[in-house]
Amino acid sequence: MEDRGLQVGERGANLEGHRKGKPTYPAYFCGRTAKMVRLLMNVKPALPKGTRDFNAEQVVKRNFIRDTIVGAYERFGFEPLETPAMELLSTLTGKYGTEGDQLLFRILKSGDFLRSADATALSKKDARAVLPEIAEKGLRYDLTVPFARYVVMNQHNLTMPFRRYQVQPVWRADRPQKGRYQEFWQCDADVVGTNSMLSEVEFIQIYHEVFQKLGIKAKLRINNRKILHGMASLIKAHEFFVPICTAIDKMDKIGAEGVREELLKLGLSTEQVTQLEQLLALEGSNMMRLNELADRFASTWIDPKGIEEMWEILSYISQLGLESLEVQFDLSLARGLSYYTGTIFEVVAPDHAIGSISGGGRYDDLTGIFGLPDVSGVGISFGLERLFDILEEQGWPVDFSRTGTRVVFLPFEAQGIPRALECLQQVRAAGIKAELFPDVDVKMGKKVKYADKRGIPFAAVLGSDEIAAGTITLKELATGNQERLSLDELVKRLLA
Amino acid sequence: MEDRGLQVGERGANLEGHRKGKPTYPAYFCGRTAKMVRLLMNVKPALPKGTRDFNAEQVVKRNFIRDTIVGAYERFGFEPLETPAMELLSTLTGKYGTEGDQLLFRILKSGDFLRSADATALSKKDARAVLPEIAEKGLRYDLTVPFARYVVMNQHNLTMPFRRYQVQPVWRADRPQKGRYQEFWQCDADVVGTNSMLSEVEFIQIYHEVFQKLGIKAKLRINNRKILHGMASLIKAHEFFVPICTAIDKMDKIGAEGVREELLKLGLSTEQVTQLEQLLALEGSNMMRLNELADRFASTWIDPKGIEEMWEILSYISQLGLESLEVQFDLSLARGLSYYTGTIFEVVAPDHAIGSISGGGRYDDLTGIFGLPDVSGVGISFGLERLFDILEEQGWPVDFSRTGTRVVFLPFEAQGIPRALECLQQVRAAGIKAELFPDVDVKMGKKVKYADKRGIPFAAVLGSDEIAAGTITLKELATGNQERLSLDELVKRLLA
Repeated sequence: MEDRGLQVGERGANLEGHRKGKPTYPAYFCGRTAKMVRLLMNVKPALPKGTRDFNAEQVVKRNFIRDTIVGAYERFGFEPLETPAMELLSTLTGKYGTEGDQLLFRILKSGDFLRSADATALSKKDARAVLPEIAEKGLRYDLTVPFARYVVMNQHNLTMPFRRYQVQPVWRADRPQKGRYQEFWQCDADVVGTNSMLSEVEFIQIYHEVFQKLGIKAKLRINNRKILHGMASLIKAHEFFVPICTAIDKMDKIGAEGVREELLKLGLSTEQVTQLEQLLALEGSNMMRLNELADRFASTWIDPKGIEEMWEILSYISQLGLESLEVQFDLSLARGLSYYTGTIFEVVAPDHAIGSISGGGRYDDLTGIFGLPDVSGVGISFGLERLFDILEEQGWPVDFSRTGTRVVFLPFEAQGIPRALECLQQVRAAGIKAELFPDVDVKMGKKVKYADKRGIPFAAVLGSDEIAAGTITLKELATGNQERLSLDELVKRLLA
Repeated sequence: MEDRGLQVGERGANLEGHRKGKPTYPAYFCGRTAKMVRLLMNVKPALPKGTRDFNAEQVVKRNFIRDTIVGAYERFGFEPLETPAMELLSTLTGKYGTEGDQLLFRILKSGDFLRSADATALSKKDARAVLPEIAEKGLRYDLTVPFARYVVMNQHNLTMPFRRYQVQPVWRADRPQKGRYQEFWQCDADVVGTNSMLSEVEFIQIYHEVFQKLGIKAKLRINNRKILHGMASLIKAHEFFVPICTAIDKMDKIGAEGVREELLKLGLSTEQVTQLEQLLALEGSNMMRLNELADRFASTWIDPKGIEEMWEILSYISQLGLESLEVQFDLSLARGLSYYTGTIFEVVAPDHAIGSISGGGRYDDLTGIFGLPDVSGVGISFGLERLFDILEEQGWPVDFSRTGTRVVFLPFEAQGIPRALECLQQVRAAGIKAELFPDVDVKMGKKVKYADKRGIPFAAVLGSDEIAAGTITLKELATGNQERLSLDELVKRLLA
């Protein structure tokens, strides 16, 4: 043992104190001391606000969503990446706007964290000035910035185009409320190093596959920031590009009238606003509206690049016949201020009043801030918690009743244990999840009750008759049916 | 959209600033600003010390270890549990000894974290006094304390015996060095609410199964803290129980001579030390040594409980015939100061100089500190990183070459894309991981080079001949062999 074993299997306290000759008695681990401490501080334990434990049922359901998304990503050639929970604050700060910076969880330096802090700043309680001196790490806020950092750090080893997926928790010091947590999971995929619209097409196929498998009716709203630029130019208000995007992005929330007011407040003329509204109100199929827009752009010499990109995507998609995903070219989708420069995606579940369940888009410059310019690509992100909430509401597309323990062995008495262990070895070798009820002295009724409470469908009873005859009595708890079976028959029955 | 969408799919910045009428321009997301910032701070990004990114190969290999352990846990009826990364400091502090407390990562309160801090303590730079006022959360240090917290918080809903497994990262502010990280994974399982030795037996079966599947030659050292108590009583030195354990635990490190010196330094007489050495030097099979010890305990009226427990475990184990796991009853295993009160486990890999690769044991009082006394149980923990290092050293028991993308489609020109998309739909529907090289204009040589670099075994070429004939040319990159196949044949070939 070359180490203290702290990082392997060593659960809890360690010997270090003793080695140094000063005994440390972790209160928790010494029976008597623990009792004293308990008397002193009998505090009910709690979770930090905005965080959750996930029990077996929740883990199984969440894994189903995760595996569905990961399965799709992998079939489309995306590779897994995992980054650490902690990033340097120099990596995180300034990437998410002023508000984002405030929502970063910062980690206090270890040891005497105040040593290098400025005394004047401390006495003035100037948190902002003290901060850089007492914290240099933070918890990741999303998966995009860690991905950008990874791409830059590994730029010489990556084969472009590089497709990666990443499914990990992120942390935000948001005020906790219903459906909003401080720790939650994102499921991202990005492909960088290509400008081809086929990447967009494949992401739409992934959307189609994921929502089909999850059984969620989904609508994909799609637009292109270049088209939004064109629209702003068309109404001769390009200097208002960002606030126009912000305003029309609120259509769902404040309605057409609200958007109109907001646009007028910006200083747009009534004529300009009306012109914009006419564009947003274009009717007909995706392709019809796109063609109409193309004509208007052409007549005023506006760059048709965005139109062409959208046309390419929509053409391929219509050939693919993705019948269970509605794809809507939607000029009112803007996705506000962001690093997107081309296609933008948003997925909503029309049957659920839950907001967007996925989003994404194309960017020209993912890694510029880290000194590597011109890394372009496109990516999407699913939020695990909302998909979970939707499926809880509408029902899950799979039966989870067979995911847990399938059979519990209940020996009547100690003599039955060796036979139970022997049977269990074979049952488990067949891949069946099986338990042994460990306390033989407990009454049979209580043993069966355990199986029932745990939702275990079968109980295997081993009394002296069964042992003598080399059989097992298998009881189906839901029906109460009992059968005397050989071990081979029992394995077959449990696999059925 | 009822929310800012921050927690779903919204990648990066948000609109909040604009809504409040004060525009925030996150430097990162605005092309022009980004360029300016880049000039100002062209810093190379880095990872925090002691943390790691895991690329595709590493994730796949780590998942193999995780899935092997989880598979075994599940076949033995353990249920998954996941707890949040952040716990209240009131949950964590005082549970891991003085040194453990120093190794906790603490999270700074959000917002004006200095507001409620004591001004005098601040001006004195008294980190210890300031700490409770500026941090109330920390990152979990292990999986045992969060499990204890969970059991207490959910005591009325848990069916006992309760078996849970938990595979998650933990964080420790340890000085980073080779093989020691600040973020690393533990794979724990515990069963609480039973005193039966069958739990120990099942954990030994799990060890057997896991190491067999991983192909790691493993030796399980097993002892019982009650036997150690008995030994200390036998030499009439029970008041030195803890330091005796600490001393003999170092046998591997400082040798018999070193242990002897340490024991004498404690104040034990030469006679006592010699007596203890004789016990440690007992020879013969596990059962023979246990019987010898039983005789000595019996002759001096020492409580035989530990002996009985060990006897029960070893008897069942010998009946089970776990041929690929060496089980050694080892009186020199003490696992130092800890919450263990009965059986203790340690697994080593004799072929690798890497220390212990798993550990665990039985405890009488897991949750006392949280106000719930008498929750007894037993648990084990695997350290993921050392298993990974061992397998990297000795080789992996499975072939990972088929885990990545199996085929990349390379259309010669844009006309081939619709056909490629059509083929890809069917290939993926058959569960095959398949990519489309998105940039058709790239030369074929470069496309093939991409497949080669990525380690993709097959390339599917679609030229005008193939499209006209309704075939695909499948090229095996390792051999250069080419075949013209129909789509059905291609699917069969790739599944083979």
